[in-house]
Amino acid sequence: MAIEIERKYLIDHEKWQQVEKPLGQRYRQGYLLTDAQKTIRVRVTETSGFLTIKGLSVGATRPEYEYEIPIPDALELLDNFAISELSKIRYTISFENKVWEVDEFLGDNAGLIIAEIELTSESEHFKCPDWVDKEVTGDEKYYNSNLTIAPFKSWFS
Amino acid sequence: MAIEIERKYLIDHEKWQQVEKPLGQRYRQGYLLTDAQKTIRVRVTETSGFLTIKGLSVGATRPEYEYEIPIPDALELLDNFAISELSKIRYTISFENKVWEVDEFLGDNAGLIIAEIELTSESEHFKCPDWVDKEVTGDEKYYNSNLTIAPFKSWFS
Repeated sequence: MAIEIERKYLIDHEKWQQVEKPLGQRYRQGYLLTDAQKTIRVRVTETSGFLTIKGLSVGATRPEYEYEIPIPDALELLDNFAISELSKIRYTISFENKVWEVDEFLGDNAGLIIAEIELTSESEHFKCPDWVDKEVTGDEKYYNSNLTIAPFKSWFS
Repeated sequence: MAIEIERKYLIDHEKWQQVEKPLGQRYRQGYLLTDAQKTIRVRVTETSGFLTIKGLSVGATRPEYEYEIPIPDALELLDNFAISELSKIRYTISFENKVWEVDEFLGDNAGLIIAEIELTSESEHFKCPDWVDKEVTGDEKYYNSNLTIAPFKSWFS
């Protein structure tokens, strides 16, 4: 089984603004299914499409099955079958031999920025850049699938 | 968009028994999702695995997105995420330049045999072998996704 071990953090927005970033990539992603046991996600960027099935998280670990699919298929699946959707700009940043993925959300999630780091084990040690703030691993309201249903904007209304 | 145009028939069991058949292939397939708009199916045979999303049928035509996936993935997805499942033996038979797929269902669907022919257009003309009987294209109770929920065995109880 493919396993995703990932920790997730909020960001110090002021420090993040100072960071010299590479060009971000726009992600559009939607869900064909989200239930208590699994999510089925379609994601498309300018260069690739993916169909991904994820199981339940235990700690920072989650089963994940990801398949690259043609971009036109991904767009059609999103347009015709997604029950919910979000967009974001992803920045990929190397720091101390690890890769951080920082997502600046758009639309109804604008204002939310989340950094993720993928690990090879739950106990792996790593250093955080100074713009990394509070950990939110396992906090379900930050799951992308939940952000499509209860977006950041709705948290304060 | 990928399109599947398919007609479906019941079988004259006596005549079918006389047919010299190639070796059949065992299919195990389950559904991660079935709703009014779409089905998401995982199928595995001895030689391949597939993840398939199908949309709504209109006549004999249905949008279909099919991706080959590794067999171990398909088995895990079936074991961990399928909400319903069936098995069948598929025989592939050429007749008058067309390919017929004949499914002999197993388990709770044992006794049911369905023949399918895939077409390039709804109006395509083709000849039926003499063992082909009543057409059931569009009859929802013969959808494989429905056979996992209301199997053949339950129709007579």
